[in-house]
Amino acid sequence: MTKNLWAGSDRLSSQLAFLVEIDKLKSVLRKTYLIDKSRRENSAEHSWHVALWSLLMLEHADDSSLELNRVIRMLLLHDLVEIDAGDTFAYDTQGYEDKEEREKAAADRLFGLLPDDQREEWMALWREFEEEETAEAKYASALDRLQPVVHNYYTGGVSWRENRIVRSQVLKRLEPVRQASETLWTFAGEILQKSIDQGILLDDASDGEG
Amino acid sequence: MTKNLWAGSDRLSSQLAFLVEIDKLKSVLRKTYLIDKSRRENSAEHSWHVALWSLLMLEHADDSSLELNRVIRMLLLHDLVEIDAGDTFAYDTQGYEDKEEREKAAADRLFGLLPDDQREEWMALWREFEEEETAEAKYASALDRLQPVVHNYYTGGVSWRENRIVRSQVLKRLEPVRQASETLWTFAGEILQKSIDQGILLDDASDGEG
Repeated sequence: MTKNLWAGSDRLSSQLAFLVEIDKLKSVLRKTYLIDKSRRENSAEHSWHVALWSLLMLEHADDSSLELNRVIRMLLLHDLVEIDAGDTFAYDTQGYEDKEEREKAAADRLFGLLPDDQREEWMALWREFEEEETAEAKYASALDRLQPVVHNYYTGGVSWRENRIVRSQVLKRLEPVRQASETLWTFAGEILQKSIDQGILLDDASDGEG
Repeated sequence: MTKNLWAGSDRLSSQLAFLVEIDKLKSVLRKTYLIDKSRRENSAEHSWHVALWSLLMLEHADDSSLELNRVIRMLLLHDLVEIDAGDTFAYDTQGYEDKEEREKAAADRLFGLLPDDQREEWMALWREFEEEETAEAKYASALDRLQPVVHNYYTGGVSWRENRIVRSQVLKRLEPVRQASETLWTFAGEILQKSIDQGILLDDASDGEG
């Protein structure tokens, strides 16, 4: 799509080009399954889901002064870089080696389609999410990590099993939950214990050979 | 999922039950296709997409004082009722006859899963969107109507053709765009004319037999 294709406005053309481009996120598949196990979840619908998580779970955030509106924006755009960089599986150590570099290049290209002011704004939100330093980023990240655990629980751990994941790996991944919400951290511990009791998540003692 | 399944908290249990239930929106298919034509779009990823539309297009809204944060919330939850009521195709006259009734029942059941305060809040947002009276609802609805037109344009009108849609039907459907944004209304007219010129949308003169 070339510039100025529409309505004689550079800005509108850029915005439309971006909105057409990000349609591709609907074809980026995650390792996580839908709760009915019918198929793997894509990153666009995942982003929608965790944004609604953030709306409903706000009262459980330890920091009662965080800005929910920034959280929602971060969650809506946090996975866009996967359009170029792909979804790096949470437990893929190799993939994580160059994840940062790949995603930075993706952010430059994708947000680069936007008018300058919007590019700066979205890039800043994406960086804030990635750095996990602000209360908003920690809370957003906590939900991004917790949602797939709930999906694993309700699907009998299909993604955990397929990838031979053990409890300590999930716990490490859930570190943002511990930092953002005492209530959700308690819940996370409980759902992992239930998962182990029900044989859908391997405990570390089983050494991945359960 | 029964109440109090988790962490001894009624509220958290209700919120989780709701978040699990709404996963079903990812399996509600719209008539619209993804831009790469690989498959039809589902209502969850559509909701994500139009929420991002609302963020980027705000400057084109005629009412410069509208509250974007309420728009984003409306767009994230506007299609949830389709979990029970299904997606009623925009041009399905029969389906529209009992659409309101079916969707009201769906809203009662779905939002009824939430704690009282959140149920009231979400129900109010959903009603506001449906009534299309506030500036926020008009702008939200405008994007909800415009996004599939853009998808139709980029897919060579596949959904228009499949359903033998003509220009006047699309224009009628785009009425909220006219009410919300002069710029986007101009754009809409332009994309429809291009579509007719390129033979991907039937003009009324062709009487649906083009």
